[in-house]
Amino acid sequence: MTENRPKTLLAMGRQVARRLITSQVRDRLLRLADVDPDLVADDFADPAVAGALAAAEVLYTSWECPPITGDVLARAPRLRAIVHAAGSVKHHVTEACWRRGLLVSSAAAANAEPVAEYTLASILFANKRVLDIAGLYREHRTGLDLEGRFPGFGNYRRTVGVVGASRIGRRVIELLRPFELDVLVADPYLTEDLGVPHVELEELFERCDVVSLHAPALPETRHLVDAARLARMRDGATLINTARGALVDHDALTAELVSGRLHAVIDVTEPEVLPAGSPLYDLPNVLLTPHIAGSLGGELARLADLALDELSRYAEGRPLRYGVTEETLAISA
Amino acid sequence: MTENRPKTLLAMGRQVARRLITSQVRDRLLRLADVDPDLVADDFADPAVAGALAAAEVLYTSWECPPITGDVLARAPRLRAIVHAAGSVKHHVTEACWRRGLLVSSAAAANAEPVAEYTLASILFANKRVLDIAGLYREHRTGLDLEGRFPGFGNYRRTVGVVGASRIGRRVIELLRPFELDVLVADPYLTEDLGVPHVELEELFERCDVVSLHAPALPETRHLVDAARLARMRDGATLINTARGALVDHDALTAELVSGRLHAVIDVTEPEVLPAGSPLYDLPNVLLTPHIAGSLGGELARLADLALDELSRYAEGRPLRYGVTEETLAISA
Repeated sequence: MTENRPKTLLAMGRQVARRLITSQVRDRLLRLADVDPDLVADDFADPAVAGALAAAEVLYTSWECPPITGDVLARAPRLRAIVHAAGSVKHHVTEACWRRGLLVSSAAAANAEPVAEYTLASILFANKRVLDIAGLYREHRTGLDLEGRFPGFGNYRRTVGVVGASRIGRRVIELLRPFELDVLVADPYLTEDLGVPHVELEELFERCDVVSLHAPALPETRHLVDAARLARMRDGATLINTARGALVDHDALTAELVSGRLHAVIDVTEPEVLPAGSPLYDLPNVLLTPHIAGSLGGELARLADLALDELSRYAEGRPLRYGVTEETLAISA
Repeated sequence: MTENRPKTLLAMGRQVARRLITSQVRDRLLRLADVDPDLVADDFADPAVAGALAAAEVLYTSWECPPITGDVLARAPRLRAIVHAAGSVKHHVTEACWRRGLLVSSAAAANAEPVAEYTLASILFANKRVLDIAGLYREHRTGLDLEGRFPGFGNYRRTVGVVGASRIGRRVIELLRPFELDVLVADPYLTEDLGVPHVELEELFERCDVVSLHAPALPETRHLVDAARLARMRDGATLINTARGALVDHDALTAELVSGRLHAVIDVTEPEVLPAGSPLYDLPNVLLTPHIAGSLGGELARLADLALDELSRYAEGRPLRYGVTEETLAISA
């Protein structure tokens, strides 16, 4: 039992709370904080949360936390810290929170993990043509001339390009280390040496067997992958998008995929559920999933655990490990 | 250029040679050895290879190398070493080779790599239900209640069981280290500490979300995975077989898969191409591939490179790095 159990209020969507606050999370919350785990603020104007908000030193937030505006802060005079059990804090942490000097922490690091894992598995399967071959085997039900069909395929000395040295991009680079693959990274903001060649975007698109997107959705990254960049990709190369649909010109990509020239693993699209008539659903050279690479199911516990760790550090007067500031937010997702 | 370029003969299937001896491999062979890279022994009785066999100090072998019998050895008086650019040497290295005291090396280490990679990707996709979800998304083309359908899914604190601490099994354990998964291993011959709990087979089947087979096909491992062991597996658990079809009672497995209780990733079957009517081709909870996890396509270069490294070590009088002996073979694949 921590001696200082800060008064804490949960703030997130009600469905989110039902998924996130498992009995284990609840038990640990009660040990660490002075909290009513059944009281969830999904609307700060709700009179039922007014008392807890007035007393709260910490907000334990997650998806669908309403914006913490100046007006909300005026009713939360004791608030000192926001620990977020999810990735981006952009939707709820407002300018007013920064002006007030609140400590803010994000579980983006924990949220990066499943996306990097999905990406790694997609790269290994793409180079090896596993899903293509499974489809052909199902169709033909006989021995196949795989090397004739997929010359040079496999995971040896192939080149993988990481677009965006974001937290997820860096984790993908790290996870690729045990494999005999050449990795390139492209990122206009990158100044450090990540241990892999740092190249221009155009070169990356030309040289890679797999290109994986890990850039944030910003006005300047909209349709970063357009018809011209797709045209630079090698025949048979694979584009992986687990970042944001807006990064890709979907009409141009669809044309390349329908022609069969490129392959793709697409977890995010614009719009988020594709129209029922989209050819992407049925193409054998496309793995299409409905925005699942991020934390889901049992992976929510990783986010809850990270935010609880931060709450514990706050209670013990130690600095937050995954603190974010207004400045670091500007160039992130 | 190595000073001592040992007289070397290639021995393997002709198709194998066409796939394995790329221009890069050919160039390196010529630098390291006194060899005719266009002469390939696929039958040691062939008069065309008699001269090269009589002179050969090294055989550079791969798949479909004919058995190197006492009779063959009698016509190869200078033979000292067999460097094998593939996994198992059981089919061509005979009792007579061991009696003669030949040095034998295998590229099993290089061959383990792609199998471990395929397994890792399969584990990450299986825990996250990626292929199930892709299938559902294709079918329904709308938002899906994934957490309702797949409670607790994802790659956080799930348990993965490795059956067989073989070279591939050990590599899988190593590749799983960056992930927040609990790994168990079962192997009756294992005495070392591999850094993960060593449990009985029955316990492994009961506790794991994914069970991956990496045991050799031996009389005592035939149908190691039978109806009783499958029945021990948790609802929704995934069986991965990249080892040998004979390890699994396919009728029992098919029954569990048709019922939908279990999932599977099956790369090897008995028979090797399943009958066209097998339900395994079409089940949404099965990823079925035609024995592709091992080295294929560009991955053959890894085997060729390893055997060339061994040839180089032999030429320089250094011990082989991946030497095999009669004793180590007895308990391996």
